[in-house]
Amino acid sequence: MRIAICGAGTVGSGVAEILLKNQELIKARTGTAVTIEVVASRSEPKADAFAGIPFTTDVVSVCHRTDVDVVVELMGGTNDAKRLVETALSAGKSVVTANKALIAEFGEGLFALAAKNDVQLRFEAAVAGSIPIIKVVQESLAGNQINWLAGIINGTANFILTKMGAEGSRQAFAEVLAEAQALGYAEADPTFDIEGIDAAHKLAILGGVAFDQAIRFDEISVAGITRVESSDFAMAKTLGYRIKHLGIAQRFETELELFVGPCLIPEHSPLASIDGVLNGVLVKSDAAGETLCTGPGAGALPTGSAVVSDLIDLVRGGQAMSLTNRRSNIAELQVLPQGRIHSAFYLKMIVMDEPGVIAALTAILARRGVSLDKIFQQNLTEGQSMVVLITDHIQQSELDVAIDELEDHAAVTSGIQKMRVF
Amino acid sequence: MRIAICGAGTVGSGVAEILLKNQELIKARTGTAVTIEVVASRSEPKADAFAGIPFTTDVVSVCHRTDVDVVVELMGGTNDAKRLVETALSAGKSVVTANKALIAEFGEGLFALAAKNDVQLRFEAAVAGSIPIIKVVQESLAGNQINWLAGIINGTANFILTKMGAEGSRQAFAEVLAEAQALGYAEADPTFDIEGIDAAHKLAILGGVAFDQAIRFDEISVAGITRVESSDFAMAKTLGYRIKHLGIAQRFETELELFVGPCLIPEHSPLASIDGVLNGVLVKSDAAGETLCTGPGAGALPTGSAVVSDLIDLVRGGQAMSLTNRRSNIAELQVLPQGRIHSAFYLKMIVMDEPGVIAALTAILARRGVSLDKIFQQNLTEGQSMVVLITDHIQQSELDVAIDELEDHAAVTSGIQKMRVF
Repeated sequence: MRIAICGAGTVGSGVAEILLKNQELIKARTGTAVTIEVVASRSEPKADAFAGIPFTTDVVSVCHRTDVDVVVELMGGTNDAKRLVETALSAGKSVVTANKALIAEFGEGLFALAAKNDVQLRFEAAVAGSIPIIKVVQESLAGNQINWLAGIINGTANFILTKMGAEGSRQAFAEVLAEAQALGYAEADPTFDIEGIDAAHKLAILGGVAFDQAIRFDEISVAGITRVESSDFAMAKTLGYRIKHLGIAQRFETELELFVGPCLIPEHSPLASIDGVLNGVLVKSDAAGETLCTGPGAGALPTGSAVVSDLIDLVRGGQAMSLTNRRSNIAELQVLPQGRIHSAFYLKMIVMDEPGVIAALTAILARRGVSLDKIFQQNLTEGQSMVVLITDHIQQSELDVAIDELEDHAAVTSGIQKMRVF
Repeated sequence: MRIAICGAGTVGSGVAEILLKNQELIKARTGTAVTIEVVASRSEPKADAFAGIPFTTDVVSVCHRTDVDVVVELMGGTNDAKRLVETALSAGKSVVTANKALIAEFGEGLFALAAKNDVQLRFEAAVAGSIPIIKVVQESLAGNQINWLAGIINGTANFILTKMGAEGSRQAFAEVLAEAQALGYAEADPTFDIEGIDAAHKLAILGGVAFDQAIRFDEISVAGITRVESSDFAMAKTLGYRIKHLGIAQRFETELELFVGPCLIPEHSPLASIDGVLNGVLVKSDAAGETLCTGPGAGALPTGSAVVSDLIDLVRGGQAMSLTNRRSNIAELQVLPQGRIHSAFYLKMIVMDEPGVIAALTAILARRGVSLDKIFQQNLTEGQSMVVLITDHIQQSELDVAIDELEDHAAVTSGIQKMRVF
């Protein structure tokens, strides 16, 4: 099988390295050699694995080469990449991509184009690096109704939260972000990672595959990690939780919740120990129960491994991937507005350290129908206390009304920090 | 697609339940209905999901029915099951099985028969219940050279070890085994589970898939959990380890190690927190890094889910499974004799609590070339101490010579408990 690699950056170099190193193994396993006929990129690729491979700056030209069977799109972005993928599919060439933004935002149209041209568009590498979560959900769990999935799907955010939550750490977000940037774990412009946009792209893809319907990126409720404070980690730990940035897609009868944001999770949750730049996705389905897959969520070789697995699936005539499994009509789930999400929540506030304050605050909550699972109070200096509450399950909009009232209370001297408990 | 289910026990009932409950979903996802045409078993099946489905006691007869496309073998055992699978494959019907003993012991011949008849033999359910580890290794990691894999692949053994190692537990093996039997987690005759035979069957299959070669069951070094003592858990914990029953397949250049037995693993290992009846497999490969999959390793619905995933792969025209990926010649790895395994080890012994004893014992080890990573001594009553040593990596046969000498030493009053550290 003859391929063109478009984009010679980190992932492109990883793919070339794997195909070079394991070429005999791949040929032995599949009966077919996978060869790179051409690499297209803005400038001549530097990686050793590209040595001797013809190079072009005219990316779209690879779609029209008769010696190319499959186009591998690893350029990133959504403008040039979309044009390339559309041209390749229209030219009757299957495409393998690692581009989560492209699939999340334009997947529906691209899969229709692939089907029309009787070729495949594969994207295992777009979500969670080397973790084969698309294949696991689409093939291994195909006999299941998925109840929910929850994933740590952004390595940068997980690295930062892990650092902030480490034993004895009291580092603030900005400090750890700078450290992550220095280590190359966060980009110079970290917006996509720390604001949850990258995770939301991945959740749109995962949710689509798991719930058999195309998910519009703008339907997802998205929060990043910039507002998590170092005291939140200490409070969470005291109460038996860890803080993780999760993407959650969850079915409630005929409705679907789509959420990206920082959450408290019980310290015994299988997701709680997935630290640093690792990713992990936990899927709860009706027959298989809880299936967890973890591994490196990024990097040249891990992401390259997922790209190569798609190439090998093409060689072997594997099942087509699609953003949705759906081949015929089953009722679509309605996306739940954020306010209607039911969950337990963590609330943190600074209050005046005076008699009767806790009684007054809990009375407000009780009047608003918010019952509490845990209360923790810690004295601070200067006559103030930090109060942390874990609520029972409640509809978020109802809780928000109670929070407004708490914030108006004279004894509450801070804003109220709210995080979901999953 | 029309199927026959042979064996109407736990897993058979689970498969029928999933196909009944999710029939619309499966049809929507695949475009094809999966229907049970006949169920074959020794006595009339009791599960509700079989209501209205024709029943026969003549198991082999289903292979000759023109209204059956696929035979699902869920009888267990290797005699009748082998005859059934051979007859089905010879009759041109694909087979899905959950039978680890059958695949481990007779897989090579059966896959050859399947290939000869141009049909598939699928076995995702044979290893680790709902965990899609066969597909992950065979398809998702197909571009990787596997370095090693280590799995908690027997839920009964993991349940017993988890119970014995629980905080404050000092229960002996026999006591916990009786409890597991009362709960239905261990069979009346628990030999296969507690002696490591079931895990070795699964390791033969997993190792075959991961290292592209048929593995003879009798090449595996197998130990069970019957010799693990309650004091081992306390000692392991003190030194920062957990005790898990692992199946390990590991490449050393041109050689392959195959090991089943109880191991100490560091408490921060991703395998350390896989408790109770859960299974988990960690695969280290050259590009993807460490991939971990966990989930329920047994049970009607989880194992049924894996069977149904194989059926859906057949509907969708998925890639054939095989015990080996190999399509052409690459050099086979030689299986390493047990004595030549290199590992760190845990040694536990009771010694006389006298001056100079530790010095004498460590001198013996030093003379035999065994260097130590950790030493821990705890005084017992009556002038005796428990001594625990963690060695550095050493060849097992060299360590065994040193152990013989230690056991001959007058100050050593017990046998020496040895476990691998992984």
